[in-house]
Amino acid sequence: MFKPHLNANEEGHLVIGGVSAVDLAERFGTPLYVMDEQRIRENYQRFYQAFSKRWDNARVWYAYKANSNMAICKLLWDEGCGAEVSSICELKIALKIGVPGEDIIFNGNYKTVPELELAIKNGALINVDNLQELKVINDLSEKIGKEARIGFRVNPDVKAPTHPHIATGLRESKFGFDVESGKALEAYQIASEMERVKVEAIHSHIGSQILDPKPFGEQAEKMMNLVAQIRDEVGVEIGIVDMGGGLGIPYKPDEEALSPDDMAEETTSTMKKIIQEKDLSKPTLVLEPGRSIVADAGMLLGRVGYTKEREKTTDWVAIDAGMNALIRPVLYDAYHHILAANKMNEKTSETYNVAGPLCESGDYLGKERKLPKVERGDLLAVLDVGAYGLAMSSQHTAQPRPAMVLVNSGDVEIVRRREECKDLTRLDKVPEWLE
Amino acid sequence: MFKPHLNANEEGHLVIGGVSAVDLAERFGTPLYVMDEQRIRENYQRFYQAFSKRWDNARVWYAYKANSNMAICKLLWDEGCGAEVSSICELKIALKIGVPGEDIIFNGNYKTVPELELAIKNGALINVDNLQELKVINDLSEKIGKEARIGFRVNPDVKAPTHPHIATGLRESKFGFDVESGKALEAYQIASEMERVKVEAIHSHIGSQILDPKPFGEQAEKMMNLVAQIRDEVGVEIGIVDMGGGLGIPYKPDEEALSPDDMAEETTSTMKKIIQEKDLSKPTLVLEPGRSIVADAGMLLGRVGYTKEREKTTDWVAIDAGMNALIRPVLYDAYHHILAANKMNEKTSETYNVAGPLCESGDYLGKERKLPKVERGDLLAVLDVGAYGLAMSSQHTAQPRPAMVLVNSGDVEIVRRREECKDLTRLDKVPEWLE
Repeated sequence: MFKPHLNANEEGHLVIGGVSAVDLAERFGTPLYVMDEQRIRENYQRFYQAFSKRWDNARVWYAYKANSNMAICKLLWDEGCGAEVSSICELKIALKIGVPGEDIIFNGNYKTVPELELAIKNGALINVDNLQELKVINDLSEKIGKEARIGFRVNPDVKAPTHPHIATGLRESKFGFDVESGKALEAYQIASEMERVKVEAIHSHIGSQILDPKPFGEQAEKMMNLVAQIRDEVGVEIGIVDMGGGLGIPYKPDEEALSPDDMAEETTSTMKKIIQEKDLSKPTLVLEPGRSIVADAGMLLGRVGYTKEREKTTDWVAIDAGMNALIRPVLYDAYHHILAANKMNEKTSETYNVAGPLCESGDYLGKERKLPKVERGDLLAVLDVGAYGLAMSSQHTAQPRPAMVLVNSGDVEIVRRREECKDLTRLDKVPEWLE
Repeated sequence: MFKPHLNANEEGHLVIGGVSAVDLAERFGTPLYVMDEQRIRENYQRFYQAFSKRWDNARVWYAYKANSNMAICKLLWDEGCGAEVSSICELKIALKIGVPGEDIIFNGNYKTVPELELAIKNGALINVDNLQELKVINDLSEKIGKEARIGFRVNPDVKAPTHPHIATGLRESKFGFDVESGKALEAYQIASEMERVKVEAIHSHIGSQILDPKPFGEQAEKMMNLVAQIRDEVGVEIGIVDMGGGLGIPYKPDEEALSPDDMAEETTSTMKKIIQEKDLSKPTLVLEPGRSIVADAGMLLGRVGYTKEREKTTDWVAIDAGMNALIRPVLYDAYHHILAANKMNEKTSETYNVAGPLCESGDYLGKERKLPKVERGDLLAVLDVGAYGLAMSSQHTAQPRPAMVLVNSGDVEIVRRREECKDLTRLDKVPEWLE
């Protein structure tokens, strides 16, 4: 098995977290998201240790957008992992499960007044995206009577080898302040003259699903050079350097992983080099991983309803989990490995396209996949869906969204109830004139 | 204005359904979906009349997947428009607002047992996608004690000039029975020998957003030839020919519309020709439009929060409506025209990329758009979002989904309440072991 936390039992059934996927599907129905608690904790610790053994004061703040289910966020906070949030609802989830403001970073290119108020009141670090936002924050701090802790999102123009939708560090990106043109430095100058903001941090995020350490080194170099420039030209010492997230995972069996150790080595050795060169104080290093913590801990189980033989083109197998449950295949052309969860001992002799149940051609989970001969009633498992799976799900074609269970050493608990039809229409209202 | 149902008032504010968009945004907040009831009714009537004046027994069944808000479905049923559904929740919505089974068509490549039971019990027409489904239906009909009304979804291999995600009539598609290889004919043969199914119909759908009449003619020709073949070789008279949907709308100002009249003329003249050639009985003609009925009746209003000047690349304007509210731009590379709703009298002198508020580079509504000089507090209107807008929305980055209002001759009513943070977490549960 190319995933170390998965295995198969004697019956040839896929096992995750000590529980058979076949049993889970029978007990909780399909489509079903399954998250492996141990795997999440291990992923976090592996990531955290990689940085903390190389850097005295390294902090890891989980990117809630990857999967903001309350149980997932709670177990990560149990491990000591803070919160990287980018909307008021993510912020409220973090506060609700007990993460204190000082362990919360608030990011985003469009922060509303209520969002900023809540962040300031709770002492969260706000990574400011633009000068208009800075002014709003300064005014709100005045009104609230509490200094805002801020950093700036800067755009180091690092080319990350990833899908254009998730490459965020380029100059054309909607995010942050351009470094090269001097806009970023200027922002620090302006903020340093403001009374109600406390300039603590610098932030960049170059993109997602990166499997090559080099861009992280390039990012570190550009960031630390800017830190030095800010000290020299603005007179501000940056105490927190937030390098964002971006660590990818091997979605394909033949893809090589980038280990947190290799990422951490590239990042921290570059930072140390420039700290020495420029005689800088050593800042707190912050990382914001999302995908690398939760993606491979999740699978999506779908029941085979129909198979379809085609002449001159690939046969189809249809499961009850579709693009509403997992949009990544059609949105990013993303590969998610698919296994026949009840036929793990059988040879993958056939080739199928795997369809979902929605009336749309974009509704597929994978194309040209090697699987055993599949029949109605079989169970397919779509792997590595713990990040940007249920979090991005929709109710397209009025498909209720799947349940999510958390497994841990043979225990299972529902952490998100399955939607019913009434959940889809509960906010609808027919005007009196139409009754 | 390139949309006949939109105009601007003296203050330079965009007006829809007799109401100022600026007033709507102030009263109901943003992001906000606005649907124009009159426009929907007119679109339906224009479509229905185009076919019914050319065909004695033409029926139009609205594709719920485009927008299954209960108020929208209800007002279309008021006009006499039936329901084309593709999931149990869409079927339940149709039944709830009073559409009788005989005015409901149930489509889809993966119909579950509960879905089929409900469809059979209510006498809906089921367009069967594959032979396994046919067997399930026959068994269920036996169990329920009621004959199932069926047709077959066939795949005429017509190339529709549209985005690959929404081209559904090709041989490689996941849908239906291949015509050319004889699979479709064989299905009719098999069904004709079954006791519990009543073979009434034939169905195809070649794709969406089609603006050229020719593919509809090609579809009609292939379908009617098959109808003749089924009569001649299987001995079954097809009483209902369901030509699906597919009529596009001009999303771009310079795009030429395909009128329902031109589509209807192409479809019906071809059908009549083959009916005469083959001496066929004249069937009921069914159409399943979605987009062409509701798309241009809807707009999405977003408040400008921030603008960002860029050197060497396009400036950005960020509104509070993002890819979670409208995924079509990033998913299909779809163009939606964008207007400055409070500056309709000003010259579109600037060029912007229009971003949403989500922490993802894919979160944009449009690129390189001509707009007046835009400032914080301005209101942008994204047009033609009545179809596949809110229906495909998500809560990505824990963004609550927008409200939807229905406007009609100056009246306004909320037809879908805005989500709050608690709506996002209401199905979450933290296991005891994590408390």
